Amino acid sequence: MTAVDDVRSTVLRLRAELCALHAELVRYGLVVWTAGNVSARVPGHDLLVIKPSGVDYDALTPDAMVVCDLDGRVVDGLHAPSSDTEAQAYVYRHRPDVGGVVHTHSPYAVAWAARGEAIPCVTTMCADEFGGDIPVGPFAIIGDDSIGRGIVDTLASSRSPAVLMQNHGVFAVGATAKAAVKAAVMCEDVARSVHLARQLGEPIPIEQRHVDALFDRYQNVYGQR
Amino acid sequence: MTAVDDVRSTVLRLRAELCALHAELVRYGLVVWTAGNVSARVPGHDLLVIKPSGVDYDALTPDAMVVCDLDGRVVDGLHAPSSDTEAQAYVYRHRPDVGGVVHTHSPYAVAWAARGEAIPCVTTMCADEFGGDIPVGPFAIIGDDSIGRGIVDTLASSRSPAVLMQNHGVFAVGATAKAAVKAAVMCEDVARSVHLARQLGEPIPIEQRHVDALFDRYQNVYGQR
Amino acid sequence: MTAVDDVRSTVLRLRAELCALHAELVRYGLVVWTAGNVSARVPGHDLLVIKPSGVDYDALTPDAMVVCDLDGRVVDGLHAPSSDTEAQAYVYRHRPDVGGVVHTHSPYAVAWAARGEAIPCVTTMCADEFGGDIPVGPFAIIGDDSIGRGIVDTLASSRSPAVLMQNHGVFAVGATAKAAVKAAVMCEDVARSVHLARQLGEPIPIEQRHVDALFDRYQNVYGQR
Amino acid sequence: MTAVDDVRSTVLRLRAELCALHAELVRYGLVVWTAGNVSARVPGHDLLVIKPSGVDYDALTPDAMVVCDLDGRVVDGLHAPSSDTEAQAYVYRHRPDVGGVVHTHSPYAVAWAARGEAIPCVTTMCADEFGGDIPVGPFAIIGDDSIGRGIVDTLASSRSPAVLMQNHGVFAVGATAKAAVKAAVMCEDVARSVHLARQLGEPIPIEQRHVDALFDRYQNVYGQR
Repeated sequence: MTAVDDVRSTVLRLRAELCALHAELVRYGLVVWTAGNVSARVPGHDLLVIKPSGVDYDALTPDAMVVCDLDGRVVDGLHAPSSDTEAQAYVYRHRPDVGGVVHTHSPYAVAWAARGEAIPCVTTMCADEFGGDIPVGPFAIIGDDSIGRGIVDTLASSRSPAVLMQNHGVFAVGATAKAAVKAAVMCEDVARSVHLARQLGEPIPIEQRHVDALFDRYQNVYGQR
Repeated sequence: MTAVDDVRSTVLRLRAELCALHAELVRYGLVVWTAGNVSARVPGHDLLVIKPSGVDYDALTPDAMVVCDLDGRVVDGLHAPSSDTEAQAYVYRHRPDVGGVVHTHSPYAVAWAARGEAIPCVTTMCADEFGGDIPVGPFAIIGDDSIGRGIVDTLASSRSPAVLMQNHGVFAVGATAKAAVKAAVMCEDVARSVHLARQLGEPIPIEQRHVDALFDRYQNVYGQR
Repeated sequence: MTAVDDVRSTVLRLRAELCALHAELVRYGLVVWTAGNVSARVPGHDLLVIKPSGVDYDALTPDAMVVCDLDGRVVDGLHAPSSDTEAQAYVYRHRPDVGGVVHTHSPYAVAWAARGEAIPCVTTMCADEFGGDIPVGPFAIIGDDSIGRGIVDTLASSRSPAVLMQNHGVFAVGATAKAAVKAAVMCEDVARSVHLARQLGEPIPIEQRHVDALFDRYQNVYGQR
Repeated sequence: MTAVDDVRSTVLRLRAELCALHAELVRYGLVVWTAGNVSARVPGHDLLVIKPSGVDYDALTPDAMVVCDLDGRVVDGLHAPSSDTEAQAYVYRHRPDVGGVVHTHSPYAVAWAARGEAIPCVTTMCADEFGGDIPVGPFAIIGDDSIGRGIVDTLASSRSPAVLMQNHGVFAVGATAKAAVKAAVMCEDVARSVHLARQLGEPIPIEQRHVDALFDRYQNVYGQR
């Protein structure tokens, strides 16, 4: 098999994977209408695959996904790519460990983002997946590097795979697109639980050493090896 | 094809489209039981197509939709039309750019409407779709032009395609019925996010120039061209 | 056809109807696990048909429904009837206009009931269906006439087809079982909207003459004649 | 049939039952992604059957379930067992009456748990199923007996089949796995109703004698005998 065949079959696989993962955003209520998107890096190539802009979730097929280079230029695809492509390309350029990026406007997370407030780590689920608070990034407007830079800079000082961009929504990253979707799902779940907890009083903080122990176990022991 | 054939085939297409769009209201949880409705203008004719009054969403078929003139009188149909037909006919008469109207009692939007309070533009999604606050119209009672006039007058001083009628619910408009449904879906999503944000503090305002930039990009660049 | 055939075929029809209506309680999220129930009067007979006690909603079939007399004694059925049978039998004995009764613990309605607070009529949907506030009945315990009496006495001074029994849940009545289910669905929808409205301020009252006009129109004009 | 055949067929039945019960956790919105689990004791044997760790709910099959001894060691299974196995094994060792255990991070219950606050018994549903307040157990970290001990010790002084572990989530027990799932479902429902009630004022307490009467009737009369 040639290198060209290899990238072709990888892209084919990623198109199908992304199609299934977009359905998870719908299932978990993280998106409405055409908002939100998932992308994946093509491993070993300066390429990403991403949702087309403004296309209904029901109409998404593997073929509809768009392949771009890491400057956000379309390389292969029938549609214009997501308007978040530049932000996500920035993340892939500056975070070689990231293989997938998700963007949502999930409602409880947006509520924290609209106040510019980090989600405090007061549940074991938050410690497990995020290793501390879920941080807030700056207000940044589409059209240049500012969203991508806001994501990368904010995540640099955190163990969290998710960031709340102020007044905007969630960007979540992972080693794979599936891991990024998992982080986006759990981000909304934590945003909701902590919102509800705060409505009727003050949640009890979790000591840092317990947060560390929970994060370590969940990252290294949980699941199938 | 004669002009008569043309209007017939257009009405046939709109009946089917409306049937599918009513299912979106159910899917997004914007309606319960028989409440709410979608209508469409028959382009180039003084006609509209609308949901029948008080019919179960499960029982809606293309045939069940009712064709009325722009005074709300039934022209073709087996059922009595929605009791909101007069209000929507008023909108079509006074807003030639409008091709579709939606009415819902979606819960978070109704909460703002019951307080007579506009939804402040504190999320990028609100700036994108509504170009500012989602405004509140007057209390108006069914039976004359007051609901239609309230919708048209309120929207006249706003870029928003949706208005919260006081103590009542949402009316959303669009170039097509699908665009109006999109506005109704996003109105509830924004109503919910901002409600949640406000419950635990004050959301950060978005500067007017950023609202303008977001609205401009979303209206003119987002999606497929 | 004899009178006996007649009651048999009516019961057969009601068993099937109730089976479908119980699925609506699930669909609208008004019940969890085996809680809640719908019953129907057998018109012209001192009989009612009701859900069996503690049976899974998924396992409900027309055959599983139980026929009782209006003292709550089983006349025909393979299962023990709902533990709310006595309360509902009381309603049928004292309200000859009632053909169906529904009981749920729907969450927003229960929240009002737990505070012993009537839901104020601040939305047009509430005026349409309930003609005013949704009233609260007394705390009453299962085992004698007190729940049934609480329902009937509270509804006597109201146009509402639904009552919130204190610390307990919703009882809704209608000319048919379907109308009672509709009232239960709209009761939860109103309970939720007004709850949300109240969380961030005070809803605007609707003037009594407007409540009257809305109720009159909805009861007499809305829907298909 | 030999004793070995007997345990084999019991395990086979429990694998299938657990598979179906995990789907109930998803249906009722008690879990997201791979979080949460249900286990069952193998009656008459020092064995339990439990969900594998970190496996998608959609991918769960009877075969995927893991059989462990009551020290949490795998006896039969293709996967690593849930990381809650030790906690649940502790419960089975110390509560011979328990045949099933469920763990969830259901959102409203987690909100109470994050504040370390018991859910007060202010609804008849809570009295029916929990016989009083739903208690809070200590903060306990995975890796030794502390979660299991916290569950058992907290439930010892309560009639409730569910406990909120501080900052963590729900553990519910029952005579069977299905009864434990029921308790987990009702725990979230009660957690939500009482949360909503408290948001707008103070719920009315239920007198202890009424709580006792409701609990007694629900445990001994409700349902099919």
